[in-house]
Amino acid sequence: MIPGGFSTEEFSARVARAQTQMNDAGLGALLLTTESDVRYFTGYLTRFWESPSRPWFLVVPAQGKPVAVIPSIGAALMRRTWIDDVRTWAAPEPEDDGVSLLADTLREIGGPVGVPSGYETLLRMPLADFERVKTQSGAEFMGDSGIVAALRAVKSKAEIAQIAESCSIAGRAFSRVAEIAYEGAPLSRVFRDFQRLLLEEGADWVPYLAGGAGQDGYEDVISPASDTPLVPGDVLMLDTGAVRNGYFCDYDRNYAVGRASAATSSAHARLIEATQAGLDAARPGARACDVWRAMANVAGSGEETGRLGHGLGMQLTEGLSITAQDQSVLEAGMVITLEPGTDVILGRMMVHEENIVISDGAAQALSPLAEKEIPII
Amino acid sequence: MIPGGFSTEEFSARVARAQTQMNDAGLGALLLTTESDVRYFTGYLTRFWESPSRPWFLVVPAQGKPVAVIPSIGAALMRRTWIDDVRTWAAPEPEDDGVSLLADTLREIGGPVGVPSGYETLLRMPLADFERVKTQSGAEFMGDSGIVAALRAVKSKAEIAQIAESCSIAGRAFSRVAEIAYEGAPLSRVFRDFQRLLLEEGADWVPYLAGGAGQDGYEDVISPASDTPLVPGDVLMLDTGAVRNGYFCDYDRNYAVGRASAATSSAHARLIEATQAGLDAARPGARACDVWRAMANVAGSGEETGRLGHGLGMQLTEGLSITAQDQSVLEAGMVITLEPGTDVILGRMMVHEENIVISDGAAQALSPLAEKEIPII
Repeated sequence: MIPGGFSTEEFSARVARAQTQMNDAGLGALLLTTESDVRYFTGYLTRFWESPSRPWFLVVPAQGKPVAVIPSIGAALMRRTWIDDVRTWAAPEPEDDGVSLLADTLREIGGPVGVPSGYETLLRMPLADFERVKTQSGAEFMGDSGIVAALRAVKSKAEIAQIAESCSIAGRAFSRVAEIAYEGAPLSRVFRDFQRLLLEEGADWVPYLAGGAGQDGYEDVISPASDTPLVPGDVLMLDTGAVRNGYFCDYDRNYAVGRASAATSSAHARLIEATQAGLDAARPGARACDVWRAMANVAGSGEETGRLGHGLGMQLTEGLSITAQDQSVLEAGMVITLEPGTDVILGRMMVHEENIVISDGAAQALSPLAEKEIPII
Repeated sequence: MIPGGFSTEEFSARVARAQTQMNDAGLGALLLTTESDVRYFTGYLTRFWESPSRPWFLVVPAQGKPVAVIPSIGAALMRRTWIDDVRTWAAPEPEDDGVSLLADTLREIGGPVGVPSGYETLLRMPLADFERVKTQSGAEFMGDSGIVAALRAVKSKAEIAQIAESCSIAGRAFSRVAEIAYEGAPLSRVFRDFQRLLLEEGADWVPYLAGGAGQDGYEDVISPASDTPLVPGDVLMLDTGAVRNGYFCDYDRNYAVGRASAATSSAHARLIEATQAGLDAARPGARACDVWRAMANVAGSGEETGRLGHGLGMQLTEGLSITAQDQSVLEAGMVITLEPGTDVILGRMMVHEENIVISDGAAQALSPLAEKEIPII
């Protein structure tokens, strides 16, 4: 019943691991409010989270199964997961939008209540309601000691298989880019058409698409696409977060339109070499900063360079950052991106990205590694 | 430079309106952290928000232009909006992820600092960092008195034009559903193909797609699509939030596969009548609950029924709810959905949805209103 072939045992094992750490941290409960945290412990998968109107809560007790405290519109779907205790209210009820029901549940289960509060987290409920829950429950609240993020960082076999499937889907779409991108095609249409290819190849949806195009590289990688047509000598980059069964891939490909200059060809080759250096360095026991340095040395990145990769899973980005500062130690089962960048000419850059899983021994590529030579379209 | 044809004057007018209300509420600054709130005052449009790694901040002072406090990766794009004062840090820096820079900015601008904290809001930054900002800035923090939500609820002409464009795109895609949905087509493929049609018709992206299919209706409207093929007598519903230039449409269409039973035909006609009753009731001065009652009376909905519509704009759902309880008063310029539902047979329902803008006199449809007769595909 849970999309992606996740077993009930997988979820109970996740909860058991959390409970061991909650015990060490002296927590009576975890309060989770985000799509990915709730799904991690339940398997509850729906695009309905796109609506910000309704809060959703999952309470993981120190013993026993999690309790869902959710809008009644989600009850039928939540009951098809492995969760038995599903408590609902008729959201939206702005006067008491789950506050009393959640406070009662927390009082019953008992605190202290750990709430993910550190790097990369957010509380997906109104602040004013959170204050009410704190008061009404009478429980003590604190951070979750990073328990949820640490658990989620190391993927199970089933999770790795899902990410690999998303990567395969994107790989098939990338291999078809020449169908949609050529001299004269407006970049905005290329963006639309590439999302279409991803759907045709099996993506459930395409939450993220970025990219850029320009002579010998692009100026930035986060702007919306303009309607400017591609011209010979342009470098086109497409970077996608496509989702299958709730798991992301996140990698990119560069293409030269018509012809590649020497600067473009050499930059592309350098990026592929840098990626390979990152792959070689990404072994259990290495730190994120070690992987950063391996890639930065080849790509010629200075300390001021932003991150060259990050964790990946139910979110487009999650967990560690491949930066000069990040001391996180790699473990088998972590899925990360390698994303070196380099300047091609003044004001024009190129970035390249692949997805890998840390394994005992050498890391395994999940995305089909690109060739050194930039493809010409 | 700002996608969607929004002028600098539009943004300065939004800020001026906010500042008038901030003055009444005794606020020295607003602190905004979400994509739609930041975009409302800046025009800053990027899909990069899909990555939860980096917080983004906008400070609206009681006088003068807003100040952006953002990751350096977004600086170039933010400087292409009308914002001049763009302060950056090299995020992600988990040790001080914008905290000091934001605290300094707030101390300089002065409080009290209003933070959206009520219904439907969230704070998009780690709770622990928020506590640090409160301490380091020395400012007083409070809610924003609903100022931002109230401003955003009433759309400008340019915003209404954008939503109308998204509605047109979806309308063209809905008119092509027979190309992709027919006896034997698995629902999961129909979901993918419909997103493809939306992209072909001009959507920039498709953040939301829901729906369902079954004999004489569906069981719920939030589950992921199964691989079950459509069979004659099924009712197929597709409900989309497609986005163009950052503005959503949110409406659905029902189709009968091969043939429609009497119960299905009559339920569809009832939903169209209910929608029309809602449209007639949705005039300036009417309350959301009045519109609810007008539709509920026709659709046969009881008080326990969930909401039958909601506000719409930069979010799939925002602002008022069409419920029996919501006393919000409609104003010209509000864009809302009308979304009645009805039971067809035991355990099977149908829902219908259209998008309208409240106007002086009768409301105007933004989506192409469906016919009473359910289309057969």
